[in-house]
Amino acid sequence: MAIDTPCDRDTWVRTIKLPPPSLQDNTADSDRLINSLTRHLKTERVQTDMAVLREMPFQLREWDYAARCVVVKDPYANQWYLTGISNPAVKRVVAGIAVDLGTSRVALRLSDLSGSTTLYETSFDNPQLTVGPDVLTRVHACDRSEGLAELNHMLLYGLNQQIRAACRSCGLDPTDIHFMTLAGNTCMTHLFMGLPPKWIIREPYIPVINCPDMHPAAVYGLEINPAGRIFIFPNIGSYFGGDLIAGILHSGINRKTDPAILVDVGTNAEVVLGNDSWLMACAGAAGPALEGGVAKIGMMAGPGVVDRVRIDADARKIQVGTIEDRLPVGICGSGMIDLAAQLFRAGMIDLRGRFVPEACAGKLQEKSEMVYLEIVPAESSGTGRALVISQADLDSLIRSKAAMYTILETITESVSMALDDLKTFFVAGTFGAFIDPESAVTIGMLPDLPAGTYRSLGNSSLEGAAQVLTSRESMDQIEQIKTKITYLELNVNQEFMNRFSAAKFIPHTNPTLFADKNGEAPTI
Amino acid sequence: MAIDTPCDRDTWVRTIKLPPPSLQDNTADSDRLINSLTRHLKTERVQTDMAVLREMPFQLREWDYAARCVVVKDPYANQWYLTGISNPAVKRVVAGIAVDLGTSRVALRLSDLSGSTTLYETSFDNPQLTVGPDVLTRVHACDRSEGLAELNHMLLYGLNQQIRAACRSCGLDPTDIHFMTLAGNTCMTHLFMGLPPKWIIREPYIPVINCPDMHPAAVYGLEINPAGRIFIFPNIGSYFGGDLIAGILHSGINRKTDPAILVDVGTNAEVVLGNDSWLMACAGAAGPALEGGVAKIGMMAGPGVVDRVRIDADARKIQVGTIEDRLPVGICGSGMIDLAAQLFRAGMIDLRGRFVPEACAGKLQEKSEMVYLEIVPAESSGTGRALVISQADLDSLIRSKAAMYTILETITESVSMALDDLKTFFVAGTFGAFIDPESAVTIGMLPDLPAGTYRSLGNSSLEGAAQVLTSRESMDQIEQIKTKITYLELNVNQEFMNRFSAAKFIPHTNPTLFADKNGEAPTI
Repeated sequence: MAIDTPCDRDTWVRTIKLPPPSLQDNTADSDRLINSLTRHLKTERVQTDMAVLREMPFQLREWDYAARCVVVKDPYANQWYLTGISNPAVKRVVAGIAVDLGTSRVALRLSDLSGSTTLYETSFDNPQLTVGPDVLTRVHACDRSEGLAELNHMLLYGLNQQIRAACRSCGLDPTDIHFMTLAGNTCMTHLFMGLPPKWIIREPYIPVINCPDMHPAAVYGLEINPAGRIFIFPNIGSYFGGDLIAGILHSGINRKTDPAILVDVGTNAEVVLGNDSWLMACAGAAGPALEGGVAKIGMMAGPGVVDRVRIDADARKIQVGTIEDRLPVGICGSGMIDLAAQLFRAGMIDLRGRFVPEACAGKLQEKSEMVYLEIVPAESSGTGRALVISQADLDSLIRSKAAMYTILETITESVSMALDDLKTFFVAGTFGAFIDPESAVTIGMLPDLPAGTYRSLGNSSLEGAAQVLTSRESMDQIEQIKTKITYLELNVNQEFMNRFSAAKFIPHTNPTLFADKNGEAPTI
Repeated sequence: MAIDTPCDRDTWVRTIKLPPPSLQDNTADSDRLINSLTRHLKTERVQTDMAVLREMPFQLREWDYAARCVVVKDPYANQWYLTGISNPAVKRVVAGIAVDLGTSRVALRLSDLSGSTTLYETSFDNPQLTVGPDVLTRVHACDRSEGLAELNHMLLYGLNQQIRAACRSCGLDPTDIHFMTLAGNTCMTHLFMGLPPKWIIREPYIPVINCPDMHPAAVYGLEINPAGRIFIFPNIGSYFGGDLIAGILHSGINRKTDPAILVDVGTNAEVVLGNDSWLMACAGAAGPALEGGVAKIGMMAGPGVVDRVRIDADARKIQVGTIEDRLPVGICGSGMIDLAAQLFRAGMIDLRGRFVPEACAGKLQEKSEMVYLEIVPAESSGTGRALVISQADLDSLIRSKAAMYTILETITESVSMALDDLKTFFVAGTFGAFIDPESAVTIGMLPDLPAGTYRSLGNSSLEGAAQVLTSRESMDQIEQIKTKITYLELNVNQEFMNRFSAAKFIPHTNPTLFADKNGEAPTI
């Protein structure tokens, strides 16, 4: 006999009332509860942990054989896990925590598992940044003895610390957290699990695991409820991580009839195209310049970082906008895109992305055979030095934008579609939040689509992870997404290389793709 | 692609050869192995532990993508656990360990999981004996704060110590043990798991759990391979433990067409009757006197303990045989049965089990209103004092034998059978090994059945547990046994009390049941 409160229906919390035992009905305590849950959840099996069992007989008697149960579903088998029970008369908060495990930033959201209330949200630098800013450095650090263990402990220590702080600030105990969902790229989830990432980055690019089992928290050294289960979003391969699966879930592409596309730009550009009956995915190295990782003055979005550039077409005066309006200290990926678009419109770079000397008069300087353009003079800069970009920086951006466009072109053509057919174009992450689609279209990085087609998704990895905390139905979708996805390998594709060469022009060698749209403001 | 060695077929060891990964086939290492195992085992799911995953990518590469896998089946779901992999080129022993967790003695058997070779066997006193000799004392000890933890640690400490010693003596490391099967009564398995046994002994007699999940060794603090799984035989109820399920498995009752009966006498008498289509079980308090737990001189079988008694019918001289032919120090259950049968035949006790003063002349003494019979005079005894039994000891034995017979009668009549219909009568445990069926029939404890009907099973709990170590098919049988068993509750049965009163005579108030058999040697 199960009594559902209205909000229980799609959540992981179930209130169960059991008939008390008698001489005629002397089933064991946990079997009594588990059998009832099994029937109620229409499943074959509900597993539970010793930690839960040890308290259960006392609790069931104290609570008159009623229990508020946290039961989470195993996405890969017809079984559930009972991660904890609490007194239904008290209705203490049972919490879940969603984690977006980014290479640079880690974001956490603490939610009430029985509803959809966000209790707390925070983000912090990935503690592994001290070892190296990028994935490659960290993977190589694992080749040292104890390297993997150190990276793993760093992350766990940081996570546990932040979880304690999050709990403190909402009056919870870490043991009140019964479920964690975690999404990250394949390397990051491997480092979290303490699995060697060595072969992920070496041909033929093999992860240790794509679909981790839902182990109890204690297995990973996570200091939440030791019986709490950890769901790690599955990765499709070395270059298509669980963060993307979470992103797909959040975007809802997999439930739409009309095909939509989702782009996430981090170290790589990861792209998913599809609808409710198919999903096509690919990933390619389009990222560094877009993430602020290439230009000497490039940096991640943060206070004082240039994220907007405007150039007066006549006076050719460069005006910059910075995050939090501080004095400029560097430029982020979206700032670079803005800058390139504005330079192109002002005629200061040509269609190959080369500085046009006569148009850049007074702003160009040459040092060690490299040409630099001054963006911010020393007297207006927050660093005391002029902010400059080199021809190499621009070339790198052009390669990145070309790669991005080529990936988009390749994936749509792989399903016999054209970019124009896309009704919705999701852009995820920090990149999606800061990018000006108009500039991206100007330089030919994103296709020229009608206004309202581009939608910023925010931290779709965190949103997707959080969605699973409060919705069983979302968990079922993940398995469907995983099964539906076809991964398109780009590495060994000659046609891709041809397309890439064509896309290295601003906006493209085929002007009809961006016809009549670069003289006026694109209609976005 | 799986390569089975001939001995692999019914065991938990599988040799798998995988195609190595390539750009065209870049499935993750563990998914590659797990998918292959899943297909090979025709199951829905194979789970594995982080400890196994952490080494797997190195090992698979070192072993050219071949692996000898230990995979054990979850008896309650269509899933398996991969508990370890080893190099197929080396064929290091992968071991399993069977444990009979007795209240008094714990028996271990170390076996080669890939065959059926016994590597080592030992038994030792249950370390909890220092807390109390019987289950009740230990359960009450758990009411103290830390009592349960202490009893649990005692047991685990002793087990780990013995496992280390066992491994040392066959050149193995405890981490070579990948699977443990454990059978014990409900209280003992609860103490092993660290679960409160409090309610097992209190009406309505509720265990915490009947069917424990197959957790990894680390969950219980067992120092074998941390990913090794522990199968604890399920109990049917508080008074019908997993040791009996193991006993049924070993006896094979559940696979015979002809109904057979199995009796195990410990603290309680536990009885199972059935065949390949049904099983009826019950348990009752028939034990203490039979286990040597009641008479002042009563003790467990051991050196110097009287296990055989002969009385010359004319001279009425009592001759005793002892274990290892030492000087007599006490008497065990089977010795008591022998003694009672011989006293009855010699006319020294009557049909109510009362001493007949004229026949016992010179051997009776009275102290504090209790009559004692001298069995061994002080000068022949190993203790320096005469060994005596009191009328109360005999009364207690009579009650035990009456309870035993009544249980047997009740269970057979519950399925409309008579005791005479039994073609096989298994007697398990130490009791079965030492008992003289002739004497047991003489006093009316066991029914009067033809020669060859009684069969001693030895330590059927250990044998059953060991059987699962090397046979998948045995594991499947356990679930069938568990499902098939009907438990007959004796506690609340008026008819039982009537039968019990009739059985308190030697051999019985109904002489036709043992007709013409007490004057001559029964035909056993």
